[in-house]
Amino acid sequence: MEKINSVTIVGLGLIGGSIGLQIKKHNWSKTILGVEKNPNHIKLAKQLKLANAFVSLETGIKKSNLIILAIPVDQIKKLLPFILNNIGNHQFVMDVGSTKLSILQAIENHPKRNHYIATHPMWGTEFSGPVAATLESFKGKKTIICDPKQVHHSGLELVRSFYKMLEMEIVYMTTTAHDESVAYISHISHISSFALANTTLIKEKKRKNILNLASSGFESTVRLAKSNPKTWSSIFLENKDNVIKVLDEYIHQLEDFKSKLDAKNARSSLQNFMQNANKIKKILK
Amino acid sequence: MEKINSVTIVGLGLIGGSIGLQIKKHNWSKTILGVEKNPNHIKLAKQLKLANAFVSLETGIKKSNLIILAIPVDQIKKLLPFILNNIGNHQFVMDVGSTKLSILQAIENHPKRNHYIATHPMWGTEFSGPVAATLESFKGKKTIICDPKQVHHSGLELVRSFYKMLEMEIVYMTTTAHDESVAYISHISHISSFALANTTLIKEKKRKNILNLASSGFESTVRLAKSNPKTWSSIFLENKDNVIKVLDEYIHQLEDFKSKLDAKNARSSLQNFMQNANKIKKILK
Repeated sequence: MEKINSVTIVGLGLIGGSIGLQIKKHNWSKTILGVEKNPNHIKLAKQLKLANAFVSLETGIKKSNLIILAIPVDQIKKLLPFILNNIGNHQFVMDVGSTKLSILQAIENHPKRNHYIATHPMWGTEFSGPVAATLESFKGKKTIICDPKQVHHSGLELVRSFYKMLEMEIVYMTTTAHDESVAYISHISHISSFALANTTLIKEKKRKNILNLASSGFESTVRLAKSNPKTWSSIFLENKDNVIKVLDEYIHQLEDFKSKLDAKNARSSLQNFMQNANKIKKILK
Repeated sequence: MEKINSVTIVGLGLIGGSIGLQIKKHNWSKTILGVEKNPNHIKLAKQLKLANAFVSLETGIKKSNLIILAIPVDQIKKLLPFILNNIGNHQFVMDVGSTKLSILQAIENHPKRNHYIATHPMWGTEFSGPVAATLESFKGKKTIICDPKQVHHSGLELVRSFYKMLEMEIVYMTTTAHDESVAYISHISHISSFALANTTLIKEKKRKNILNLASSGFESTVRLAKSNPKTWSSIFLENKDNVIKVLDEYIHQLEDFKSKLDAKNARSSLQNFMQNANKIKKILK
């Protein structure tokens, strides 16, 4: 496994912070530099030792073999052209953002485009910020690398080595396929949870303590409603077209369920609806 | 804690079977009789020792202080008048069904109405049948007793003792409040999961292996889609009016989210939507 001299992590929240902890644990890079603009996060990240030192982005770019962007996608789009303008021929930049197409559009004609590796580790929790960083992260999960053919082979090897260190299984796909897929297996889950929480909270205003009754089933479906609004507004807007497509299909399924409730053969058509949904058993463990 | 000589459990699936295991563990009743019409379930329940003996409903009624109905609500409605016709002055019958109003309507003018106790322990898993029965059940969760004032005090004491044995916390409410509340904190969670599974399964037909990417967030929101279609079609139909009301609100929330995605001030209005949903944090642990 290739190891490096210096890595810069931009953004020391849940994902960036967890990456810092893993790199340190595996001694994958001699130095870990942190770039973080939120003063409170810097303070926490220092206490939690998520990086060896905190520097400006410019210093991070100058000193590191690899720059990892673990910030919201709208911020990645803004920083990435600047970073590509300033890195040398043996330096690479990767991101771990949840959507990819709009980032790619921001740099696809850049002369150093092949020094950028678009990745997405499929791990996260409903918590956020440096205090959410954990060593209980990444291992055994899938990670996506988009459009590997457009990346310089040394950069690709470096990122492969990074994900090998995290013990993640790499899946390759196009940027377009990535953004569509995550809408279906991540973004809609979050929307369904946020909407479910709001539905029940409205009722709770009238019927106090209704939520006291909630058991593990409710908690499981509503867990993601605790997620960070800033992070997720960015993700939903970056992936708006795919999100609207899957949301339309989801609403259609719910309308279909509702019309089946009132149909003549309600029992059997509801059962068919649910028997189809049961097929998820075979696919998930 | 009052203990009894004989209890009959009608239906030895996830809930009835788990009740059998708990009664045996705590030695709450000298004898546990099982009534089960599915021959395969009888075989499994015998192997798993969920009851001491399997008998006809008539025998169970003759021999037991308490009869517990752990079968789908539509079957409870059919059996309950027969049971009330046949029990003596010191016998009681309770159910653990997920909806209550339609059961009540079937027996509210019965002379032995006060020998029936409507209850709903707020525990379950996505699994079903005798093999799903487990001692990891009930403890520390809430259970609902409906309309306690309409129940004979000895019957109420007996059922309180039963739930004390299960280490559950009793909440009292009216039948109407129960059915409305469970639509909001249980039934809609299941519908949202079934619909989410179907949405993603449709996509999976075109984009193979999309589900390989799914992480714990997706699994958490879709877990309930593994639930039993027969059990749940019965619950949804029994509680149709409340289910439609909450489903309408849920679809409204999703439509609202969708329109916010396209609004001028999309970022801030999506964040408001999610910040409101975040309030669920304070209520759930």
